[in-house]
Amino acid sequence: MLDTAETFLEALSANGLVFPTGVDGIYGLDGRFETVVQAVDDFITREGQDDGAERVRFPPAMPVRQLERGGYLKSFPHLAGTVHCFDGDERDHRDMLRRIEAGEDWSDRQSASDIALTPAACYPVYPMLAARGALPDGGALIDVLSWCFRHEPSIQPTRLQTFRMREYLRVGAPEPIVDFRHDWLRRGTAMIERLALPYRIEAANDAFFGRVGQFMADNQKSQELKFELQIPINAGEPPTACMSFNHHLEHFGDLWEIRTADGALAHSACIAWGLERMALALFRHHGFDIGQWPAGVRAALWP
Amino acid sequence: MLDTAETFLEALSANGLVFPTGVDGIYGLDGRFETVVQAVDDFITREGQDDGAERVRFPPAMPVRQLERGGYLKSFPHLAGTVHCFDGDERDHRDMLRRIEAGEDWSDRQSASDIALTPAACYPVYPMLAARGALPDGGALIDVLSWCFRHEPSIQPTRLQTFRMREYLRVGAPEPIVDFRHDWLRRGTAMIERLALPYRIEAANDAFFGRVGQFMADNQKSQELKFELQIPINAGEPPTACMSFNHHLEHFGDLWEIRTADGALAHSACIAWGLERMALALFRHHGFDIGQWPAGVRAALWP
Repeated sequence: MLDTAETFLEALSANGLVFPTGVDGIYGLDGRFETVVQAVDDFITREGQDDGAERVRFPPAMPVRQLERGGYLKSFPHLAGTVHCFDGDERDHRDMLRRIEAGEDWSDRQSASDIALTPAACYPVYPMLAARGALPDGGALIDVLSWCFRHEPSIQPTRLQTFRMREYLRVGAPEPIVDFRHDWLRRGTAMIERLALPYRIEAANDAFFGRVGQFMADNQKSQELKFELQIPINAGEPPTACMSFNHHLEHFGDLWEIRTADGALAHSACIAWGLERMALALFRHHGFDIGQWPAGVRAALWP
Repeated sequence: MLDTAETFLEALSANGLVFPTGVDGIYGLDGRFETVVQAVDDFITREGQDDGAERVRFPPAMPVRQLERGGYLKSFPHLAGTVHCFDGDERDHRDMLRRIEAGEDWSDRQSASDIALTPAACYPVYPMLAARGALPDGGALIDVLSWCFRHEPSIQPTRLQTFRMREYLRVGAPEPIVDFRHDWLRRGTAMIERLALPYRIEAANDAFFGRVGQFMADNQKSQELKFELQIPINAGEPPTACMSFNHHLEHFGDLWEIRTADGALAHSACIAWGLERMALALFRHHGFDIGQWPAGVRAALWP
C-alpha cells in the first residue's frame, strides 16, 4: 500500500490526514497531522532550551530586496516565488473578471510587489543581525521557524511547495561555528533515535541552478559543507532529508557584512528540520494511529 | 509616546518586540510577541473545545483556481497576491542577475504559477467541504488557522501584509448559522472582557473594490452581515477590528455548491480573530512587559 510516493499520499488522504487541493504540493492538514508537527516543534525546543537561543519568528513573506542581496536568486532562481498584485482600475478589473470567466490567462494584470516568499527560515535573520551592528562577544544563536516556499511541485508528499522549517542558526567566529554543527550532528541523531526512526547521515548539496550550480553543488559536497539526516519515507524512492546541518563559512557574513566583535567577517551554520517531513516520517514508520505509536516515541514527543 | 501608529510601531521596535524589514507591514516578531500570539490561539482553543469543531490547517498559499471560484478576485482584486516563478534557462538567468546587479526591474522574468496567497483562513475550507459531498446532518463546524496575505502596506503595526487569522467556521442550514454567530458575539465579547481590553461592537463592511464594491459594502453593513469587535490600538486612529463575526448567507454555499443533508444550498458564518492584532491590543493596553500584565489577564491566557 505504501510502495510509491503516490500511494503514500493516497493513504494519507484516505486516512483523512491530508486534503488535496488540486495543486501538487499544496495540501490541507488534519488536526492530527498538525498535532504531530507541533509536538516535533516542541521536542526541538526542549532539546535546545538550555542553549540560550534568541527566539524570533518571521512571516511567510520577506522583502524581494533581501532575497536579491541574500544571494538566493543567484543560486536558486527556479525555486523562488515573488508576490504579484493588481494595481489596475475598475476597467482593468472588468477585463480581469471577463478573462477569468472565459478561462483565459489574466496574469499580465498582476504587477510585481516588493515582497517574495521566504525560501528558508534563516534568510530573514541575516539582515536582522546585520542591522544590529557587530555581533556580541561569543556571536549569536537564533531559534527561528518560518513557513517556506519552494517552487517544486511533486506528487511526493515529502516535497511540499509550502512547508515549515525550524532552525537553530549560529553566527560568529569560525571555531565555535564548527563546534556548533558538530555538536548538533550528535544531538540531532540522538533525537531521531528517540523517535525510533531509521536514518542515515550523508554529505549532500543544495539544488543549485544550472551548470555553474552543478560546480557549486559538487564543491559543497566535496567540502562537506552540508550533511543531511535522511529517512526512508517514500518506498522505492531515495530517502528524504528531514534534517540538514549546513556550514556556510563566511557566505552570509560577507553578503550582509555581519562582523564579529573583533571586526572579522562572521561565519555561520544552521541546523534545520523540515517539520512536515518529520511528521511524515513518524506516520510512515509508526502508522496513522498516533495512539498506537511506541511508548518511547510518545514519551519523547509528549513528555 | 504611543500617540500615532508610527510611534506605536517605533515603541514596539525599540522594545525589541518587532523587527522592521524595510517593507511596511512585513516584520519579524520577537519570541515574547510570539508567546502572546500562541497564548491567544490557545485561549481560543480552550473557549471552543467543547463544541466539537473539526481542526484543519492550511498553508499560506492555495490554488489560484480556488481564489477565482471563491469570488475573492471579484470582490477584493486589490488585496490578493499571486505567486510568480522563474521558468527560464541559464541565459535568462544571467539576464536576471545582470538586471538585479544594475538595480533594474526583472519582474517580467517571472511567470504566474498556479498558486496564490491565502487571503482569509476559511477560503480553502469551502472546496474541502464541497469535495466531501452533502454536509452531514447538523452541518459542519471547522476550526481553522492560516497565515493570510492582504496587499495593503501601511505604517500601522495593526495592518500587516502577512498575518495569522484563526477562525471557527459554521456551515449548514440557515437557522443554526444565525444561532452560531449570535452565540459567538456573546462568547467573543466575554473573552475580550477577561483580557481587560476596551472594545466596541460595530456593524461593519469588508473593503470591496470599486463602485460596485461600495454598493456591496453598504448592503453588507445595512443587512448587518458583518460585525466587528474593535479595540483602540493606534491612538488618534479609529479602533482596530480584532474579531469579526461574518454571516455569508448562501454566498459560499452557492459558489462551491455545498449542500445540506436535505439538499438545500448551505449557509455559512465565521468568527475570526486577527492573532497579531489581539497581541498588539494586549501590548498596547497592558504594556510591553508581559510579567506585569494584570493577574486576571495572565490567568486567562496562561491558566
